Amino acid sequence: MKDYITMSIFIQTLKKRLETINSHVCVGLDSNYKFIPDFIKNGQTVKEAIFDFNKRIIAVTHELAVIYKMNVSFYAAYGHEGLEALRLTNEFLKQNHPEIMILADCKRSEMGQTVEMVAKEIFDWLQFDCVMTTPWFGLDTIRDYLRDESKGVLVYIHDSNPSAGEIQDLKLADGRAVYEVVAEKVANEWNLNGNVWAEAGITYLPQLRRTREIIGEEMPLLVAGVGAQGGKPEDLRGLFGAQGKRLIVNSSRGIIFASKKNDESYFNEVKMSAFDLKNKLQGVAKLT
Amino acid sequence: MKDYITMSIFIQTLKKRLETINSHVCVGLDSNYKFIPDFIKNGQTVKEAIFDFNKRIIAVTHELAVIYKMNVSFYAAYGHEGLEALRLTNEFLKQNHPEIMILADCKRSEMGQTVEMVAKEIFDWLQFDCVMTTPWFGLDTIRDYLRDESKGVLVYIHDSNPSAGEIQDLKLADGRAVYEVVAEKVANEWNLNGNVWAEAGITYLPQLRRTREIIGEEMPLLVAGVGAQGGKPEDLRGLFGAQGKRLIVNSSRGIIFASKKNDESYFNEVKMSAFDLKNKLQGVAKLT
Repeated sequence: MKDYITMSIFIQTLKKRLETINSHVCVGLDSNYKFIPDFIKNGQTVKEAIFDFNKRIIAVTHELAVIYKMNVSFYAAYGHEGLEALRLTNEFLKQNHPEIMILADCKRSEMGQTVEMVAKEIFDWLQFDCVMTTPWFGLDTIRDYLRDESKGVLVYIHDSNPSAGEIQDLKLADGRAVYEVVAEKVANEWNLNGNVWAEAGITYLPQLRRTREIIGEEMPLLVAGVGAQGGKPEDLRGLFGAQGKRLIVNSSRGIIFASKKNDESYFNEVKMSAFDLKNKLQGVAKLT
Repeated sequence: MKDYITMSIFIQTLKKRLETINSHVCVGLDSNYKFIPDFIKNGQTVKEAIFDFNKRIIAVTHELAVIYKMNVSFYAAYGHEGLEALRLTNEFLKQNHPEIMILADCKRSEMGQTVEMVAKEIFDWLQFDCVMTTPWFGLDTIRDYLRDESKGVLVYIHDSNPSAGEIQDLKLADGRAVYEVVAEKVANEWNLNGNVWAEAGITYLPQLRRTREIIGEEMPLLVAGVGAQGGKPEDLRGLFGAQGKRLIVNSSRGIIFASKKNDESYFNEVKMSAFDLKNKLQGVAKLT
């Protein structure tokens, strides 16, 4: 492992994609089988329906997707069929859109030998490019992922859920909040191989702004909580980082389940929702 | 959801098992395929070998196992075959040893809809009785698991790994450490349905002792880090809780990979290691 901070292949690819397509959208393929429209489900197995749905979403969103994100639990909830649909989706992306990185939304907190096992699951079997971790266990949680600089590690600094502040906003004796310590570690001592980046929720705007201050203008920042959780793109003004191209905004339900239609027009509406978010974010990025 | 603290069916079953067999051993079935002896692997698929290995371990340990714990990542690392071996193992335990609870070692940190998905994966598909979470996201992480009192939620309060203190030992303005806040929440406000319990690592003995002080004598406490990570049973004196029967000690590699043999005597040595740990813990429990 290197003792200096470099820029990993993963982060290079991610930044290049941000710059090339001038978009800020992470498409969250949290494809809960329950909500997939019936005209896709009919006559197909669970595995076929999820994979088919994902391919159609990819067809109408790949032009503006900086990165795809899949919540692994949404697939594992449907057992082998769900996980096979996930694996096939990632394989499809690798074959057809290798320039788009794929993020495993899995919030793992592991250490030692288990990190090696998670790497086998997430990178080797499921073919993701980046794993998501919590900072709860400290550097051990991420160090063993850092060996392969083609892979990224996303650390969740301040979450978007209602009770996120219970632990993350606790005030320390030295005046900092817990999440600020995490942001400092992500920006410096934990980023041993240049492939660590950060996520924070828009529903805690002061903490999101402070996170950008601490991690600096160059590190890509993924924002959760826009759309379904109530966050608005205009609140992101000033947070886009270097060249206005270091911010990525996830939308899951707000894109993939944007339509109530039960025919092919479903995917037209998905496409419109995705481009609407892309355009709104571009507008806000220009203001910074 | 009830607004008072009761004792859930899960916790009742766990306590009854502790009291009935007078053992303190959690057998960690972290059955890394790589380390399964060749005489089991030969002529079998990965799925068959892991399931066969687990059944043989169960045959020689079920008398003293208060609970079985499986690290889900060790199975997922081997894809569908590994996960199917895990599912079959849990099904086997449910059919043959329903009095022994099964814990999913998965350290999940999720919220909202994702908790529902994890419950489908861990409880419905894989047939675990208890999920493990980190406290990083606050109450949202555990509240949605609490609806079914036949299921347990284990919260990891202070971990055993070298960098665990980076976040967990941070000192707050009011003098408490972060992990102490977590222990207080686990003991009180988060335990809405009486099915929450606690885990802490023996490698941070002062924090482990403080955890027992905060959670009280009645709540079962799972201890990690004994054996392979260097913790000694005698260090646990005074921590066994009510009647000396509220402490459970996990051992994974120290039991299931205790032997270097490559024939049936392997499982005799596994049995001896497990009973050795049981006896040592019984001895320490009596001293309290």
